[in-house]
This record gives sequence, C-alpha cells and structure tokens, in this order.
Amino acid sequence: MGRKRIGVIGVGRIGKLHIQNIISRIPDLQIVAVADIAIEDNREWLESIGITELYTDYRDLLCNDDVDAVIIASATDTHTAIAIDAAKAGKHIFCEKPIDQTVENNEKVMKAVQEAGVLFQMGFNRRFDHNFARIRQLVADGSIGDVQIVRVTSRDPAPPPIDYVKVSGGLFLDMMIHDFDIVRYVSGCEVKRVTAHGANLIDPRIKEVGDVDTAVVVLELSNGAFAVIDNSRQAVYGYDQRVEVFGSKGQVVTGNDTPNKVEYYSSDSISRDKIYDFFLDRYPDAYADQFKAFALALNGEEDVPVGIIDGLRAVQIGLAAGQSLKDGKTITLHY
Amino acid sequence: MGRKRIGVIGVGRIGKLHIQNIISRIPDLQIVAVADIAIEDNREWLESIGITELYTDYRDLLCNDDVDAVIIASATDTHTAIAIDAAKAGKHIFCEKPIDQTVENNEKVMKAVQEAGVLFQMGFNRRFDHNFARIRQLVADGSIGDVQIVRVTSRDPAPPPIDYVKVSGGLFLDMMIHDFDIVRYVSGCEVKRVTAHGANLIDPRIKEVGDVDTAVVVLELSNGAFAVIDNSRQAVYGYDQRVEVFGSKGQVVTGNDTPNKVEYYSSDSISRDKIYDFFLDRYPDAYADQFKAFALALNGEEDVPVGIIDGLRAVQIGLAAGQSLKDGKTITLHY
Amino acid sequence: MGRKRIGVIGVGRIGKLHIQNIISRIPDLQIVAVADIAIEDNREWLESIGITELYTDYRDLLCNDDVDAVIIASATDTHTAIAIDAAKAGKHIFCEKPIDQTVENNEKVMKAVQEAGVLFQMGFNRRFDHNFARIRQLVADGSIGDVQIVRVTSRDPAPPPIDYVKVSGGLFLDMMIHDFDIVRYVSGCEVKRVTAHGANLIDPRIKEVGDVDTAVVVLELSNGAFAVIDNSRQAVYGYDQRVEVFGSKGQVVTGNDTPNKVEYYSSDSISRDKIYDFFLDRYPDAYADQFKAFALALNGEEDVPVGIIDGLRAVQIGLAAGQSLKDGKTITLHY
Amino acid sequence: MGRKRIGVIGVGRIGKLHIQNIISRIPDLQIVAVADIAIEDNREWLESIGITELYTDYRDLLCNDDVDAVIIASATDTHTAIAIDAAKAGKHIFCEKPIDQTVENNEKVMKAVQEAGVLFQMGFNRRFDHNFARIRQLVADGSIGDVQIVRVTSRDPAPPPIDYVKVSGGLFLDMMIHDFDIVRYVSGCEVKRVTAHGANLIDPRIKEVGDVDTAVVVLELSNGAFAVIDNSRQAVYGYDQRVEVFGSKGQVVTGNDTPNKVEYYSSDSISRDKIYDFFLDRYPDAYADQFKAFALALNGEEDVPVGIIDGLRAVQIGLAAGQSLKDGKTITLHY
Repeated sequence: MGRKRIGVIGVGRIGKLHIQNIISRIPDLQIVAVADIAIEDNREWLESIGITELYTDYRDLLCNDDVDAVIIASATDTHTAIAIDAAKAGKHIFCEKPIDQTVENNEKVMKAVQEAGVLFQMGFNRRFDHNFARIRQLVADGSIGDVQIVRVTSRDPAPPPIDYVKVSGGLFLDMMIHDFDIVRYVSGCEVKRVTAHGANLIDPRIKEVGDVDTAVVVLELSNGAFAVIDNSRQAVYGYDQRVEVFGSKGQVVTGNDTPNKVEYYSSDSISRDKIYDFFLDRYPDAYADQFKAFALALNGEEDVPVGIIDGLRAVQIGLAAGQSLKDGKTITLHY
Repeated sequence: MGRKRIGVIGVGRIGKLHIQNIISRIPDLQIVAVADIAIEDNREWLESIGITELYTDYRDLLCNDDVDAVIIASATDTHTAIAIDAAKAGKHIFCEKPIDQTVENNEKVMKAVQEAGVLFQMGFNRRFDHNFARIRQLVADGSIGDVQIVRVTSRDPAPPPIDYVKVSGGLFLDMMIHDFDIVRYVSGCEVKRVTAHGANLIDPRIKEVGDVDTAVVVLELSNGAFAVIDNSRQAVYGYDQRVEVFGSKGQVVTGNDTPNKVEYYSSDSISRDKIYDFFLDRYPDAYADQFKAFALALNGEEDVPVGIIDGLRAVQIGLAAGQSLKDGKTITLHY
Repeated sequence: MGRKRIGVIGVGRIGKLHIQNIISRIPDLQIVAVADIAIEDNREWLESIGITELYTDYRDLLCNDDVDAVIIASATDTHTAIAIDAAKAGKHIFCEKPIDQTVENNEKVMKAVQEAGVLFQMGFNRRFDHNFARIRQLVADGSIGDVQIVRVTSRDPAPPPIDYVKVSGGLFLDMMIHDFDIVRYVSGCEVKRVTAHGANLIDPRIKEVGDVDTAVVVLELSNGAFAVIDNSRQAVYGYDQRVEVFGSKGQVVTGNDTPNKVEYYSSDSISRDKIYDFFLDRYPDAYADQFKAFALALNGEEDVPVGIIDGLRAVQIGLAAGQSLKDGKTITLHY
Repeated sequence: MGRKRIGVIGVGRIGKLHIQNIISRIPDLQIVAVADIAIEDNREWLESIGITELYTDYRDLLCNDDVDAVIIASATDTHTAIAIDAAKAGKHIFCEKPIDQTVENNEKVMKAVQEAGVLFQMGFNRRFDHNFARIRQLVADGSIGDVQIVRVTSRDPAPPPIDYVKVSGGLFLDMMIHDFDIVRYVSGCEVKRVTAHGANLIDPRIKEVGDVDTAVVVLELSNGAFAVIDNSRQAVYGYDQRVEVFGSKGQVVTGNDTPNKVEYYSSDSISRDKIYDFFLDRYPDAYADQFKAFALALNGEEDVPVGIIDGLRAVQIGLAAGQSLKDGKTITLHY
C-alpha cells in the first residue's frame, strides 16, 4: 500500500481545515489537487504548501488520473451532482454532511456509488469526537449491557442569521440531524418511532419563518429503548454537546470539553472557564481523525466507518420529526 | 414564640427517623406524644428519650391539648382519615407523601384543612435536598432567566417486590410522582400537557402486572417550556437523582451525591465510589430540613413551603401520564 | 452485650454535639449522666431529653456506678487531671484532643490508663471523616502499593483571635497537629525526621506574638517516604482540607466537600458554591462516627481505633517542627 | 509586516513536530530551510511539503539570507555552539530546552545574543500549556492577591533507561528543572532559598548511578512565599502534571488533562480513563502555541515571552537543589 492521493473540491472554511489537517496529521494521505470556483483566491497559499494542481472546474480534477479519492467540501446544493460525477469517474468519495436534505438525492448518490463500486464516507465528524467515540466503544463492548435510555443535549451558542434559518430546512434537518446520527451511532440501533415537541422561546423571527428554536424529541429504538434529544438555538453559556447512554449493566456519560482544567477559588465561589462557543473549537481532533479512518478504508484495512446509508437515515428521521411536530402525533418509520 | 409541641402518628421507619431528626436537629420542635397501633413495641425506646405520652389510638393523641401539631407517618391508606380528624381537632399537620393516589381524597383533606384553618405541610422531602433546593434558588432569583428546558433523571437501584408493584398505583403514581413535583418546584411553573412513553425492559413480571419499568415523559409547562423526565426501575450503579434547568440566561445542573470525594488512580483507570444505593442515604438532611421549615411555619415566620395543592397536582399529572401512555397521545390538563 | 452507659464531662459546644450525636445516631450508647461546672445552665435542655443525673463536680459523676465510660469534653487544661481521675475510678475514657500540649502530661495519662486497664480513645475526629477514612482504607488494603509521597493541605478560613494565638502553643501544636496525625493515619508510618518552614504572610500581629501564619513541613517517614503538609491561617475561600497519598501502585486523592453539587453555567463562567467555612460543617459525620467506633470498643468487638499514643506522637512531631523552624534545620525524632 | 522565514536545525522527533505545527497552525511563519546531519533521511518528506532548501551543515543554513530566524532542535550538547553561531550570523533564535546544564554555557550564549542584538526564545513549552497559562493569567491579573503557597506535582509515568539517567545531570536538572521554571512563571517571583529532599523508592539502579528517583523540594520565593515541588520517576497511573497557587485573595488549581470526559458507572464504581502517559500527548497545543508567541516577537508586536535568563535561572536552582540534597541543608541563591 502507498500513500493515497486526494483531490479536494471546495476550499471554503471546511475545505481549508481538511487540507491543513491532512498535511499535518494524516501521513497516509497526500493532497495532490484542489478545485474551487474561486481557485485563484487560494492559489498563493496552496502553492506555498506544495499543492500545484489547481482547477476552477471540479470536472477537470475528476479527469486527473493521479487522484485516487476526492473530498467534497463545496456548497451543499452541489453535493449531489459532484458526488455522482465523482463516482462515475471512479473516485472514492469523502463528502461533507449532508449529501442533501431530500431522500431522493441521497438515494441517487447511493445508487451511483453502488454502481461505480467506489468507497463513500460521510463527514459526520462528531462520530470521531473523543467523547462520543469512547461512549460508542463502551456500549459496543458490552460494558453497559442492553441500551435502555439515551440522552442527548445539543445546544448552539446563538441562533444563525434569520436568512439562514429560512433556507436551513428547519431545526430538525439543520441542527438535530447530527443528534439523530449520534443516537444511531452510540446505541447501535435504528430509530422506529419519532415524537417531536417544539416551541419558540428565543427569537420570534424564527417563528415567523415557520421554524422552532427549542425542541425535544423522543425516539423509540429498534430494541425497545428510548432516546431523548433536546435542542436549543441559544445556550448563552456556550456550545453544549452532551451524551449519555444508560443500560442494563451501567451507564456512560460525557460532559462538555473545556478550554482548560483550572478552577478558581475566590471568596465568593469556585469557578472555571466557559465551555467552548464554537464547533471548530469543540471538535478539532474529530475533524482530523475522520481522515485517519478514511485513509484506512482507502487502503483496504478497515471498512468505511460512516456511509451514505447513515446520511439517508438521519434525513429520514429529521423529516419524520417535522411531520410529528406538524401533526402532533408519533410517526412510525418504515425503511 | 415558644417551642411547638408535636405528636407523631406512626413510628415505622420514617416516623422513627422524624423523631430522631427533630430531637437532634430541630430545637424549635418538641416531640411530646406518639401514637402507633403497635406502640408497645416502641415504648422502651421512646421513654428512654423522654417521650412518655404514648397511645395506641391516634384519636387519643388528637385529644391531647398539649399537642400543637401532628406528624402523620402511618400507612398511606390511613392518611386521609387521620388528616381529616386532625384538622377537625385543630391540629396543624405534617403529612407524609402521598396523601392519597386519588384526586377525590386529596380534595377531601384539602377541604377539611381549609375549613379548620390549620397549617398543612406535605412531606415532599426532595424539595429540601441541598442540590434541588439550590437549583430552585438559582431559578427563583433569576440567575438562569426564563426557564426553557428542564431535565430530570430519576432511577431506582432495583425494582420493588412484584407484590408491591401490583398495588403501587403504577410507575407514574408511585415513582415519577416525585419528579412531577420536582419539575413544578424547580421551574415554578404548572404542567399543562403530558406525553408519556413507557416500556418493559427490565423485568417481564412488571409487564405481567400491567406496569412499565422504563419511562420517558415530556411535559409542556405553563410558560411554554419543556420538561423531560426519565425513570428506570433499575440502575445497577445506584440511586440516580439528577436535575437540570436550562434558561435564557444560563443553566443549573446537579449531579449525584457520593459517599466520599476520593479518587483512586490505578494503572488501569481513575475510579471513585458508587453513588448511594438507598433513598435514606441520599436524602438524610432533606428529611431533617423539612422540619426546620415546618417549625418556621408553625411559628408564623414563613409560609408552609409545600402544601396540599402540591400533593394534588402531582397526583393529577401522574394520572394524566397513565392516560397518555394508555391512549398513545398527549393529554392536556385542566385544573 | 448491652447498651453502654456514658457520662459526659463538659457540655460546651463540643460536649453538646457529642450528646446530640449519641442520642440520634449511636443506639449502643446511652447518656446517663452529665457533669459541668455550669450544669444549671444546661439542666432544662438535658432533662427534656431524658438525662437526669446532673452534677457540678465531675468527681461526683465518676462515683456513679451506673457510668461505664466518660467523655471528657471540658477545657483542655483540665483533661490531664480528669483523665487520671477517671482511669482511677475504672471508667473507660473518650477524651477530646489534645490531652495536653506537653509530652509529660500525655505520658502521665498514659501511665494512669495503663495501670487501670481502662480503654482510652482520643477525639481525633478527622480519622473518621468519610474522605480520609476511605483514603486510609485504600492505602491499608494495598491498592496504592508502598506509600511514597503524602500531601496534606490544611487551611483555616480565618485566623483565630490574637489572644487565642498567644496561648495556642503555636501553629504546629494548635493547627498542624491534626495533620501530623492524619499523615500517620493515612500512611500507617511513623515520622522519623521533620523539616519546618514558616512565614508571616497574613497578619503581622501573629508575628508579634511569636508565631507563624503560613507553614510548610516536610516529614520523612519510617518507610523512607515523604509527607508534605502546608498550613495557612487564612484561606479566603473556606476551610481547605485535602489529602493525597501516592504510592508504587497508584494514587488516592480527596478534594473538599461542598454544600451541594450544583453547577451554574452563566454567560461568563461555570461556578459552584464555596467549600465549607467551618469545621463543624465539614466534619459533621466524623464527630458522630467516632462514637460508633467507641461503642464497638466498649463492647469488645474492635480495638480502640485511636489511642493515647497517637495523641503523644502528634505532640512530639509538633514540638519537633517548632524546634526545626527555630534552628533552621532538620530534627530527627527518637521515640 | 510579512511572514517571517524560518530555518530549522535538527529534524529529530521535536524538530519534525515543530515543522508540522508551524505549517498547520502558524500562518505568520514559513519554514524555508532545514539543516540536519542526516538531512537525506528526511529529504523526501520535506520536499513533499514544499521545503527545498536542505543542508547537512547548519552553518550553510546560517549563510542563507532568506532565513530570518532559526529553530535549534538538535542534540543538547550542540545548542551552545549553534546558538552562538546563529547569533553571530544575525539570526533570531528559538532554542529547545535546556541550552546547557552549566551556568557557564548559558552565560556564553547570553553574551553572544546580547552582542548580536537578536531575539532569543527558550523552548519552555509548558509555559504555553492551556492550564498553566491560565493559572499564570489569574495570578498576574491579581485574582488571587499575593502569592503565598505554590504546589507543583510533576511525575513521570516510568523512569528513563538507566543509561540515560547516568548522563542526565540528575533528577533536579533533568526533570525538576521544568518545575523550577513553572514556579517562577506562575508566581512571577524569583527563588531565594532551596531545600531539597530526595530518596530512592523506585529503582535501586538509579541509586547506584548516584541519583534519586523521588524528591520533594521547598523553595522560598522573593516575596516570602513558599513553593513545594514533588517529583517521582514513576507514577503508574500516567504523566501527572499539576499546579496550584494559593494567595491572599483565593486559589487557582489545575488538575490533569484526560483523553476524554466520559464517566462509566458500573455496579462496582464510577470510572474514567487514565490521564495521558506521554508528554507529547499532554502538551500538544503548548508545542504549537509557543511559536505563535515567537511569531509575534519576530514581528515586534510583543516581547519574547521566555528568554535566556529563564533558562539560566532554572539551571541555577537545579544546581542549588543538588547541593542542598548533598549537604542536607538549605541553600541560598545569590544572582
């Protein structure tokens, strides 16, 4: 096995992060080409780090025989087309989440990937978080026995701009979709039934555009267990990301990461610094570690850890949650 | 103001605990009389601690003019009759929870107490827990702003005997009723709507007697907030009692108490001792501190902190939860 | 075996606490008599809890044949005489710490006790603290292997009145003496060499009366290990009481107790309440639990857990620390 | 201001780490040249990341006019000569710790740097650790008032090979030297007096080569405060790195970092994963962040945060500790 050669499509914030992470931490991958509609804005930086095959049109990158696999980090509405083209070009694919918010496009990509026989990894980076991955491991190795109750709290530090909310697909598809995936990941179970509750407690403009800003969803899992997810668009104390799994033999719980371990004892209280405010500060290693797994998959040493089906399932659950909220009743999923 | 004279009705486990707590920790109360159907079994101990007015029939105690107030700690099915008699006798009342699992009997006691004009305090001891009381205080003083999401986890170390489960009134009235009260207490809100989910994941005999052993309930509160409660009849790691309140200005969270603060760093892991397994180990001070509040109320210095209405509301919510589980839909409460 | 009958000598703050603890928590002990030079001030309270044998002169109590054992909780300068008289009267003895700050008086009491063949327990209550006792247990059962480094931090919330400091015997005999005992207790080792460092960083009046307010002492133990103790007369954040033991197979560490487990997440920080400010709040159960051990010893079920020798050793180490500070060099102890 | 151009001298483990960190995290620095006696072994990797000016002899790198500053990451015994040559060549210098274990060579480098007027930063990476830096900040901003007691625990997971111990300069210069720097850093004080205690509790071969494996050192600081450092060559539970600073207005404490925040509640205990075992796992960000500071210094925006004098002082304290242990008395430092 040799070092696999990667082409990156899209060098916005996340694309740049992927390039830096691969260079500094993933010796088994080598970035050999980059495509971006604004490639010239990034030419100087890319060349200074030794990447010289640069394209404006991603299709030119797909024609480059030196490229073994592509990372799709362009705008979400381009994912479906690029992924299908990449599959047809015989490139393995790492695609940022989500592929698409419709079941239809997820299924189109799935079909193209299956026909081409290429590998496909979804960028559900949270699965690679040190805390959540350790929880998964303790569930998978039987430490807690049968899963009975999963609790996920996931709250953003502040709502996105209202213009973003309008086109976001709604809280369930834009925000809680990650938590649906985490429930599937840590429990190892499928979701069978969805009951959603939502409210507008934070910003009336979110209500005006037809979305909720606070939500609680109860999921019934394939083994009979329950999962409860709560989301808020605004936790003034930071980006709150916690998971618990309770089972017949015990429980695993993770709190939030903090920027340091210092406690200050004053004459008033004992205090420590706030949790992180920003997803890139919370999940820096997870963003890199997903490429360690991708490298192992490309080299045939391990299976792809998170696939198209995982992206599709999360979309299906999110759509069911929206339906449940609208109808005021529990929705049963039939896959 | 002087020391208030107390008569205790019922000296089982809880009645004895109340007597010991009052003697050692509540100087403003004095136990002057005790009634119990098996009073002779307790005569030696009671006399050795200076209590000499002992009765077999509680009605004799109610006739004792030296008694300012009674503590009702007898079997639950006697609470209604004793409370009504005590009210008619003009005695102030502290009554162990629950008064009764029916709305009807709660209302009968309420009427008798109101007509007699006596004070009535419910023994919802968890409200006096150091952790939950601190959470209530931080919510009440505005530290977290508007309440938006309440999370309560409450799990027993092991299921009660199946014969008890049969007559317990079901998980919602026997176990989660305490959590309904805690939600009302920490949030300062009433419960408007109840959606219950239940399952049998622990012991099939619990299913056979028509009850669930695992449950998740979502409550919608009068201010629009959500509360989520999860209960399990069996947490192998101990008696798990946690509460969180999330609001517009912050969050308050309490973990479990532990028997000590020692951490052991071995070559394998960092470990500490299990949480408590038993409710009397978890809430020892709460059982005493509720009588400090009762003494203040008897002396007219503060209002009774937890009244009949609180007992009634918890029963109403519990009944609604049972209905929701049965019907598979959300129940709206009309008080 | 029957319930042992106890006479209490001295009903100041600590004597009262002992009486309350025994009544409410130690069923195997019964308080039958109390002596105090101001017994009349306490007559009403004592009689109301069923104690009727009351004396002004402790010698009258020692003549009472109903008394199996005495608790000496009078002023420190009376301990030696009372303990010797009690031994001669054949009473078992629980004596508040210290017996006396001189080696000579400790040895006199030891001789009297040995000649009389009575049991003697020192009131080193910290040994019964849930945290320190758990640390001792983990050391004693071999969990950390050979003890190599002990760390003790012990800081008072505020200096005592300067008039007290003057007659206190100095920081090493008044304050650090408890930590010397804790080092011996948790390590199971004797102290062989003492090197003391002291400074005046808090209140110049403490220096004026010839004492230090901040001190660090390094002890070399009989097995070659080191113990480091630091004391301060003023920790503005509360009564700081921590112990660590490091060994060949691991480490045990205890932090401070706190009044509750609540964490408050605001937009500024994560905070929790201060640790306790007062020794009676920090060690409430330890004060009671030492009498459980005393009851077991009186009934011949276990040895006395802390004896005269422990009081003597702590005094010897404290005197050596004072000498080390004065001479600026290490002092070797020869027992 | 532009991007500063860096030459790296020595590409062993630490040199490689510096190169990776600078490429991925320090946009204001650019690696333009590398020298190493075994440069050919690293040619392929270095060229693949765009570094093409490669030398076997560091003096050739010093002649390269494109190089603004050098990073000296070669073997310790070459630091003095390279640093002096680099200063003479007018290159700013970042030098791995220690410059040298002799006062003489530290002073030679200091003289050369001062004469050349170049910037010099010591690689005391722990100063950039998130925990220790936060402690320093809270001390520096007055949060804890006057420093009174500093506690540093620093323990390695396992002793180094005995052949290394032989030439290491001894525990005080090889291991505790970092803690001496941390005491100076967090307290902002100089060390005036040193009292060292040492023992052989871990491996008799360490004694045979004339070194200790367990040590406790008490430092008296320029403001009258005390610092206590304990070191062990073997903590079986991992790489234990903790610091506390106690002062007139409060206390700051940092525990160890852990690989995740997961707690596992079993029927036996509550456990979490071990702390890190390896310094590169414990201080990954600190290694990168020191170059952010270096970049700011090179651009004239801030002073060099840690200079030659800091390296010299740590060596002087380490030598005094060795003298104290040998003589069995306190050593006073005269700078």
